[in-house]
Amino acid sequence: MADSVPPKLDLDWTDIAAKAQTRLINSIPSEWRLSHDKLPPPEQLDVTGFPAKCGLLSETELKITDSYATDIVGAVAAGEWTAEEVMRAFCKRAAIAHQLTNCLTVIMFDAALAQAKKLDEIFSRTGKTVGPLHGLPVSIKDNFNIPDYPSSVGFCSWALEPMREESTIVKILRELGAIPFVKTNVPTAMMIAESVNNCYGRTVNPLNRALTSGGSSGGESALIAMHGSPLGLGTDIGGSLRIPAACTGIFTIRPSYGRFPHFDARTGMAGQEAIGSVHGPMARSVADLRLFTENVANYGPWLKDPKCIPLPWRTVQLKPKLKIAVLWDNGMVHPTPPVQRALRIVAKKLKGRGYELVDWAPDGHAEAMNLMGAFFIADGGKSVRKILEACGEPFRPEMQTYESAKELGVFDLWQLQKQRTALCKRYLDRWAACKGLDAILSPTTPYAAPKSGDFKTVTYTGVFNILDYSATSFPTGVIADEWDDLYPSDFKAYSEIDEVTKKDYESADVHGMPVSLQLVGRRLEDEKIMAITERVVQDIAP
Amino acid sequence: MADSVPPKLDLDWTDIAAKAQTRLINSIPSEWRLSHDKLPPPEQLDVTGFPAKCGLLSETELKITDSYATDIVGAVAAGEWTAEEVMRAFCKRAAIAHQLTNCLTVIMFDAALAQAKKLDEIFSRTGKTVGPLHGLPVSIKDNFNIPDYPSSVGFCSWALEPMREESTIVKILRELGAIPFVKTNVPTAMMIAESVNNCYGRTVNPLNRALTSGGSSGGESALIAMHGSPLGLGTDIGGSLRIPAACTGIFTIRPSYGRFPHFDARTGMAGQEAIGSVHGPMARSVADLRLFTENVANYGPWLKDPKCIPLPWRTVQLKPKLKIAVLWDNGMVHPTPPVQRALRIVAKKLKGRGYELVDWAPDGHAEAMNLMGAFFIADGGKSVRKILEACGEPFRPEMQTYESAKELGVFDLWQLQKQRTALCKRYLDRWAACKGLDAILSPTTPYAAPKSGDFKTVTYTGVFNILDYSATSFPTGVIADEWDDLYPSDFKAYSEIDEVTKKDYESADVHGMPVSLQLVGRRLEDEKIMAITERVVQDIAP
Repeated sequence: MADSVPPKLDLDWTDIAAKAQTRLINSIPSEWRLSHDKLPPPEQLDVTGFPAKCGLLSETELKITDSYATDIVGAVAAGEWTAEEVMRAFCKRAAIAHQLTNCLTVIMFDAALAQAKKLDEIFSRTGKTVGPLHGLPVSIKDNFNIPDYPSSVGFCSWALEPMREESTIVKILRELGAIPFVKTNVPTAMMIAESVNNCYGRTVNPLNRALTSGGSSGGESALIAMHGSPLGLGTDIGGSLRIPAACTGIFTIRPSYGRFPHFDARTGMAGQEAIGSVHGPMARSVADLRLFTENVANYGPWLKDPKCIPLPWRTVQLKPKLKIAVLWDNGMVHPTPPVQRALRIVAKKLKGRGYELVDWAPDGHAEAMNLMGAFFIADGGKSVRKILEACGEPFRPEMQTYESAKELGVFDLWQLQKQRTALCKRYLDRWAACKGLDAILSPTTPYAAPKSGDFKTVTYTGVFNILDYSATSFPTGVIADEWDDLYPSDFKAYSEIDEVTKKDYESADVHGMPVSLQLVGRRLEDEKIMAITERVVQDIAP
Repeated sequence: MADSVPPKLDLDWTDIAAKAQTRLINSIPSEWRLSHDKLPPPEQLDVTGFPAKCGLLSETELKITDSYATDIVGAVAAGEWTAEEVMRAFCKRAAIAHQLTNCLTVIMFDAALAQAKKLDEIFSRTGKTVGPLHGLPVSIKDNFNIPDYPSSVGFCSWALEPMREESTIVKILRELGAIPFVKTNVPTAMMIAESVNNCYGRTVNPLNRALTSGGSSGGESALIAMHGSPLGLGTDIGGSLRIPAACTGIFTIRPSYGRFPHFDARTGMAGQEAIGSVHGPMARSVADLRLFTENVANYGPWLKDPKCIPLPWRTVQLKPKLKIAVLWDNGMVHPTPPVQRALRIVAKKLKGRGYELVDWAPDGHAEAMNLMGAFFIADGGKSVRKILEACGEPFRPEMQTYESAKELGVFDLWQLQKQRTALCKRYLDRWAACKGLDAILSPTTPYAAPKSGDFKTVTYTGVFNILDYSATSFPTGVIADEWDDLYPSDFKAYSEIDEVTKKDYESADVHGMPVSLQLVGRRLEDEKIMAITERVVQDIAP
């Protein structure tokens, strides 16, 4: 299998990292490489405006890259744009995004442009698209396999190893007409909430380069926020789709396990099943998420992935008056002031629109997070260690719990799994007892986006991985404000992490950052939570 | 949780067993208890005719108990029979069945009759049934919890402990109008393919008491074959529904994991999730299976069980010409001669009816069984040992692998899980490559039914638990024949177990026994495999 432990390698990890970085930068055509004097200075934090000014993209290319995925497939299918011009525009903009944020790990521009031309040829010959995503550039998180390119998953040991088999979801996207053109950066083993590793380094947030773009799908979030990709594929086992989406103000859905094919994505913890890793789309609108989810689910992925459930995308009819429970605070870490304010504003707007709002207590959330912590390191960190050791790569400091973990015996794992199922049952019963409840509204993270290195807790997302609930993250339209968003003087911390979160927070650091929230449905209510998110986004719009 | 490890008990296991057996026999009303001279002599092997002759049941009661579940709910809903008279008839017949085959562990006649009266009262007052199973007696495998009664799961430690919570499926059956009236015997930890334990002893096959009724749902199969219950609830983690159904010539479906609520059934291996245990119905017709599956799935069990998939019962349209792959032999153990003959006869009939038949190789079956063996004892037998030790109960000889098992670390479990998923993928691809394949036809077990103590291999069923495929077992109408069903003189054994299987086999021992086969669909194709089974049963009928 592709995710096996590598044999001892000849190269040291630092040599591999240097080679991988060189290979990466060399795969950007020289005419799209910017010299240092052409790039914004390091102290320029917001670089989202740079592509429009740098002169590399034409008017049309700017228009294309500022379009939504849904519009792009429409325009290509209508013959307004060719797949090739769309692809070239995104290749350019992705190249720029990478040079500003370090968001990529693999660049496949030549293959992508060739495929775009092929699609154009088919379209002009037959007058038909090959599928509903005909000609759409898609960016792919590093851990999905594409033949001839490595899937490093943030490990040096894997960074120079070309893969042989293509991951099922990538194949399906291709059959639907989409064109993978880049792979995006992740943290080591995808088990850090920022996107930093010893091979490719750190991805930063294009809205503010002092801040993290989140993780583990943080290469994706930086790229999409730069309009360097219209639609990206990320993964989520503890918040890895929602956290980076929130840090950059884009949209995502973490579907329940079994909706989308994921069994052959690469992972640093192969065979771990107590918490199912899932993949999902990241984009700049709910409609674009739907473009992915509907088409992939209706493709019938269960015929190719033994873990997928035979459940085509279902239509849902929402009731006119939605009932939303608000999780103001999870009792472990307070949301920072901008997130608290966003919650209050959104709740108030929804109430004004006739929603029924109730409070939601974080019962079981701390227990869920303890379980999550135990499941992740149940193998004593052996899986990660073996991959690191093959080239002498050290554990990163963020991975300390993996380095010091003690392996559990299977009996103890069974007890934890039993405990997890009991917790899931209590949560389901609590949901049912809150008659007519449609969704939980919660922070996605305690942060607008923290400074790089300051991401401390995934407790707002992780609980819903333990429960396997469907959850979206969406930008609220609320913008962090240096003067409005201050901790109260009588703040009492729940915990050391809560204290540190407050200490790390400076309202000026996040001034101007978008604030996102999370909407959560029950397990496999993917269609419903998407429809609710659509309505909420409409209803809170100015 | 209900399935926790018990504290050290005051009573020795032999004392508990004696008490439990006394309690059980005393819960049969004295007028339904038969003295030894009234019972058939021990050497009388087929006791299925006894209820009609013993004088305890009236003509009507015989008619009721010889009816199908579907007819019973029809007759009660039409006011032809009262729920009470139906229940009384089955209580009597179950009491007789138990005295002939030792199939019960818990008797709840008083509560069941009281509930039947209550339903009759509601029906006569409102003219309406409380649900689609109104007044239907259902028998329940020992490991489902019913308040105030023990769920021993074949362990002495648990045999006198009244449960507090009712298992979700039992609650749902009650809400649908059904009435649980007995619980049925299982082997220790439900991990033996016959129904024998140190507490309640051994259940025998009512068609031939020298033979096993199979396991682990072998109390159910004996009871239903005696017409002591119209519909029973069993479980299956390696064949535990299909094996006992095949041994007694009744019908069952092993649904895929997540269709029916199972998380709070008691188990000797709580928290084990690498292979999901499922429950399913056992009955004397496919229509009766459907009565259960449709109503339970459409109840919406996912609102109560966090592991259930929101998938109501779907209607399927079978294509006119079905394509069936025949697994003649699994390369580990040859089917005994009656089973080989049944396969040949059924295949020939289906071909004659226009089915497309192809051969199916057992690729991956041996690997699947190795994985199953490893998963079951991955905790080093600790879960079972702790329960046994609480009252000093020894391991039964059939559980030797559990006694001598060495616990795995979680890292090794992850590797096995990875291997299992890869195997599932290869199997799914092989199915897809066999264009248009609808089902696999396979032996359910190598036996018509072996002598008690001779059940040696679950390899024909277990592979489909590893794959989580939907599978039915159905009687073929073929009857084992002393003279026809002989091993060929040039027989070459695959393995020691194959050799022993031949050695244990005497055609005279199984003369007259019904022979069953298995039909297998892909994961979550429960509706389809049920519809296929219905059609096949019709098409092979004389």
